[in-house]
Amino acid sequence: MEIKVVRQIMEVNEYVAQENRRLFDQRGILVINLMSSPGAGKTTLLERTLDALKNEYTTAVIEGDIATQLDAERIHRHGVPVLQINTQGNCHLDANMIRNALESLDLDGVRILFIENVGNLVCPAEFSLGEDMKVTILSVAEGDDKPEKYPVMFQQSKALVINKLDLLGFVDFEVGAARRRALALNPRITIFELSCRTGQGLGAWVDWLRAQVDEKRAASG
Amino acid sequence: MEIKVVRQIMEVNEYVAQENRRLFDQRGILVINLMSSPGAGKTTLLERTLDALKNEYTTAVIEGDIATQLDAERIHRHGVPVLQINTQGNCHLDANMIRNALESLDLDGVRILFIENVGNLVCPAEFSLGEDMKVTILSVAEGDDKPEKYPVMFQQSKALVINKLDLLGFVDFEVGAARRRALALNPRITIFELSCRTGQGLGAWVDWLRAQVDEKRAASG
Repeated sequence: MEIKVVRQIMEVNEYVAQENRRLFDQRGILVINLMSSPGAGKTTLLERTLDALKNEYTTAVIEGDIATQLDAERIHRHGVPVLQINTQGNCHLDANMIRNALESLDLDGVRILFIENVGNLVCPAEFSLGEDMKVTILSVAEGDDKPEKYPVMFQQSKALVINKLDLLGFVDFEVGAARRRALALNPRITIFELSCRTGQGLGAWVDWLRAQVDEKRAASG
Repeated sequence: MEIKVVRQIMEVNEYVAQENRRLFDQRGILVINLMSSPGAGKTTLLERTLDALKNEYTTAVIEGDIATQLDAERIHRHGVPVLQINTQGNCHLDANMIRNALESLDLDGVRILFIENVGNLVCPAEFSLGEDMKVTILSVAEGDDKPEKYPVMFQQSKALVINKLDLLGFVDFEVGAARRRALALNPRITIFELSCRTGQGLGAWVDWLRAQVDEKRAASG
């Protein structure tokens, strides 16, 4: 019975996700679902990215958290429209939360919508939101064994951002080992190595985002 | 309907957790449920703790992971009986997984059973396993805002271990702020500040565990 209900929940989620996707496609908006453990640096990466792209594209952000408006307040300071979803204890965003959020978010002219998921390396990977791609962020402080231990997240992502490179040497993390493990699960994943703190490696990530916007624009005709 | 099923799942879990608790109490075993984000240092803390206590108590470990035997292999090297549960994608341990694990784990003479939950700062807090206490581990690399953003875990825990103190100065983390936020949610929580890497602060944590064993022994008559 539990299994049947879970299947129904997933089917309803997939249906709503497809509705969201249609809306995003019609408007030619690139939608990126950012996922990671708590504290891997999703919000900080977002802040750096928004600043880097602010003269090129209109962007918008949906922040998912269990509680508090802390992340939305951080994004708001960058002058970007942001909507905070509080999941009230729920461990992931779902497509319906995004649909409801879209009613309060002005998408006019928006080229990229970033959705920051709840900090959780497990559950968010299982719920499509209608996004174009999932991106996983892994902090080097978490250890290089995480792809093997939390495989679904890495299998589902188009890109992996290895963050907090400035901590290498102070923690047990081999970049090569993390790369190998992620690629074994998902040979097509694009991997970035960067530090939001020092700015090292951010350029390649931002360039890649620009290319994703161009691709989406071309696909939307 | 979803809500009704969720309630049933929680009720069944609570029933089985109480059965587990009766068994632990009869045998006078202190049971500790270790919870944290991925990579906060649960397994490393466990390794240091087992080494510190090995001449005093018989211990045993249950390792919870979505996939792999990596953590059980690490514990095994310390000569402690360990059983690995793979949740096959499930984001938390539940009481029934523990009951099944107990059938394969020799509890004779065991004074402390450590259960390392799946790395997840959300879901594990909602499922009782029949443990005496939950302990949350927070790495300073995760940021000092985490108690506010993931409140349930901190509300439910008897102790909070702030780990990776050796990274202070390289990350944005104020110990005082993290303490204040955890205590605002749970005024009775006991907080330890330590580094598993350098050993700093481990003594106070181990002493506290000794006191918990004594209390449990006294309560079990």
